[in-house]
Amino acid sequence: MNVTVRGHASHFRTVTFDVRRNEVLLIEQRLLPHEFQVVSTRDFRQTARAIKEMVVRGAGAIGATAAYGLAQGARAFRGRAQAAFLRHIETVCETLKAARPTAVDPINALSYVRQVMGTGQTLEEQQALALAAAEEFANEDVRHCQDIGRHGVKLIRNGMNVLTHCNAGWLAFVDIGSATAPLYAAQAQGRKFHVYCDETRPRSQGATLTAWELAQQKISHHIIADSAAGHLMQRGKIDLVIVGSDRTLGRTGEVANKIGTYTKAVLAKRHGIPFYVAIPLSTIDWNLRSGFHIPIEERHESEVLGAWGVVGRAPDGIRKPSPALPARRLLRRAYVQVANPASKALNPGFDVTPAELITGIITPVGILKPHELWARRRDLGCAPGIKDLRAH
Amino acid sequence: MNVTVRGHASHFRTVTFDVRRNEVLLIEQRLLPHEFQVVSTRDFRQTARAIKEMVVRGAGAIGATAAYGLAQGARAFRGRAQAAFLRHIETVCETLKAARPTAVDPINALSYVRQVMGTGQTLEEQQALALAAAEEFANEDVRHCQDIGRHGVKLIRNGMNVLTHCNAGWLAFVDIGSATAPLYAAQAQGRKFHVYCDETRPRSQGATLTAWELAQQKISHHIIADSAAGHLMQRGKIDLVIVGSDRTLGRTGEVANKIGTYTKAVLAKRHGIPFYVAIPLSTIDWNLRSGFHIPIEERHESEVLGAWGVVGRAPDGIRKPSPALPARRLLRRAYVQVANPASKALNPGFDVTPAELITGIITPVGILKPHELWARRRDLGCAPGIKDLRAH
Repeated sequence: MNVTVRGHASHFRTVTFDVRRNEVLLIEQRLLPHEFQVVSTRDFRQTARAIKEMVVRGAGAIGATAAYGLAQGARAFRGRAQAAFLRHIETVCETLKAARPTAVDPINALSYVRQVMGTGQTLEEQQALALAAAEEFANEDVRHCQDIGRHGVKLIRNGMNVLTHCNAGWLAFVDIGSATAPLYAAQAQGRKFHVYCDETRPRSQGATLTAWELAQQKISHHIIADSAAGHLMQRGKIDLVIVGSDRTLGRTGEVANKIGTYTKAVLAKRHGIPFYVAIPLSTIDWNLRSGFHIPIEERHESEVLGAWGVVGRAPDGIRKPSPALPARRLLRRAYVQVANPASKALNPGFDVTPAELITGIITPVGILKPHELWARRRDLGCAPGIKDLRAH
Repeated sequence: MNVTVRGHASHFRTVTFDVRRNEVLLIEQRLLPHEFQVVSTRDFRQTARAIKEMVVRGAGAIGATAAYGLAQGARAFRGRAQAAFLRHIETVCETLKAARPTAVDPINALSYVRQVMGTGQTLEEQQALALAAAEEFANEDVRHCQDIGRHGVKLIRNGMNVLTHCNAGWLAFVDIGSATAPLYAAQAQGRKFHVYCDETRPRSQGATLTAWELAQQKISHHIIADSAAGHLMQRGKIDLVIVGSDRTLGRTGEVANKIGTYTKAVLAKRHGIPFYVAIPLSTIDWNLRSGFHIPIEERHESEVLGAWGVVGRAPDGIRKPSPALPARRLLRRAYVQVANPASKALNPGFDVTPAELITGIITPVGILKPHELWARRRDLGCAPGIKDLRAH
């Protein structure tokens, strides 16, 4: 998508590859929304560290980063022996996998690149195929998001108010995003609409990443506290909800997504507001038989007990901090402890929304009812080929 | 309630009066939960400023502070002429009223104290009556909260998990609190239970004030993100919800309270979890005919765009800020900008919960169904006397 840096709009992907320098280029997401910076990784170990330390995050984005990391590792091999090359590739894959051990996208990405690489005869051919496969993997991610946009765009009508939760935008993918794809497609068609971004405590991805994306794309939006959506729905100010998904059960249509998604679905149902989930095929889990069995990650309590931000002048309208902080401290990222220091927090990271609350699931192959996923499973990635690998 | 300062537990009220020094003593709530400090105001102007600058907040607490402020002003009068005294009292009342012009409790408190004062003959008698009336007003606040606890205690069973939202605790009243009253009463009877405190963004009163109160009282509790309650309900981990109220419509049973209350009521209904509202009589509005007409205050967007806290070392488990802040900066309160700086926020402060979602309203005269308020209006403060004044 376009990013305006010092007045100039340029097109960026979240993850790209510099063939000449053999470097992976990443938008440094930990600095957003306060600073925009593209960083490069010199070798596959740095690429793995970028995944581990969350320079890059989001299912599609870390999948593509792992794919490029493998190509980078393969291309950096300087020996001549095929056996040594294979041992090297094994090390590269293990290093990249270990960066986010529970994520499924890097595993699928690495399998795909290795499989394509394996069809090469010479060492040079295999290195070239690794790069081609990584590029194809990244492009496939972009095409899937474009397809989600193409199908989802019909939901966005002129003058609508759309609620989103967390960030399932282009920063979480190679480009375009899932939940944001229908919005960007509607904007491209000249439609006018307004977006309410749930802040999405405790990590505030809505207030930081989604709001930043929408601002870059010049889409009209407001950030709201997670608690405010119910009130806005009651007053008729929300017409549509679109969220992403971390895991979608192919057998039941249940959706696991960032904590708070379920609450929005319950509220939408009460107010008769359509609730859609946009998913890339890689999030579909064809094995689990009940959302109750989805493990819900308990995250660190410090996320709830405080907040990360930039220490600065207090804005107008609220109390000032005692002495003004010296100017050189402006723009310093800091953690503030908000809560009572003697109290503990409970911090479930995700929740599960049952199929009955979901109006439709926007997939790259079309908008489906939750219970239609299983019937359409062949179209949704159970067939052989790249889709199969990615959809696992 | 008891507060433990440097290892010693002492009993404190949120608002008290030092008769000898003619000073109002207040818990400095802006420093909580990071520091506990009792401050005193030398004259009625300082008392008004303490209300205005939110040293003290919460309906019951600012009512009592205004009552004491008037007694303080009356007692400081050094003249002999009744006419000059009355002019002075007029100034005191206007100053105290102007501190929080939209709040109803200070107005009721001042009317009550003036009325009682007016029955005195001599100037000295009137000064003494002012103090007696202020004490009576504060004691009445405590008795009401005790009565709420006495009625509400039967809802709290051993082993229960109770959800609260925002702070309707003793810090918002003279003592005990409204939503917390049943909890404290149950603890006094030896019952064991657990409380989940909604963080209550954007101002985080749950994470700061309610969690601090519960920690002081040694009541088992966890702070949760506002988005987490739905998930906990779905997994059977919440048995009861108790919240406070900023305004309760006597004719319809609708409740206006801190933003997010409505969402919790919708979730509780879906899961068949009892949802109770604890109210002091002063919050009942006998005039309005529909919750739709309750004006919803739009608060400053900076509350949503950032957070107030104490800058310090990053706790384990999350990313550290670049260079460690120097030690002398620990415990410095600061505002951090969290959200995208180019984005705007919408910040409605309250929402309205319809009667059909409310299992019961815990009042000082008993637990009533929302539609029973109107039938019981005489018991609820429409009769003459102090209750009438307070209930407006």
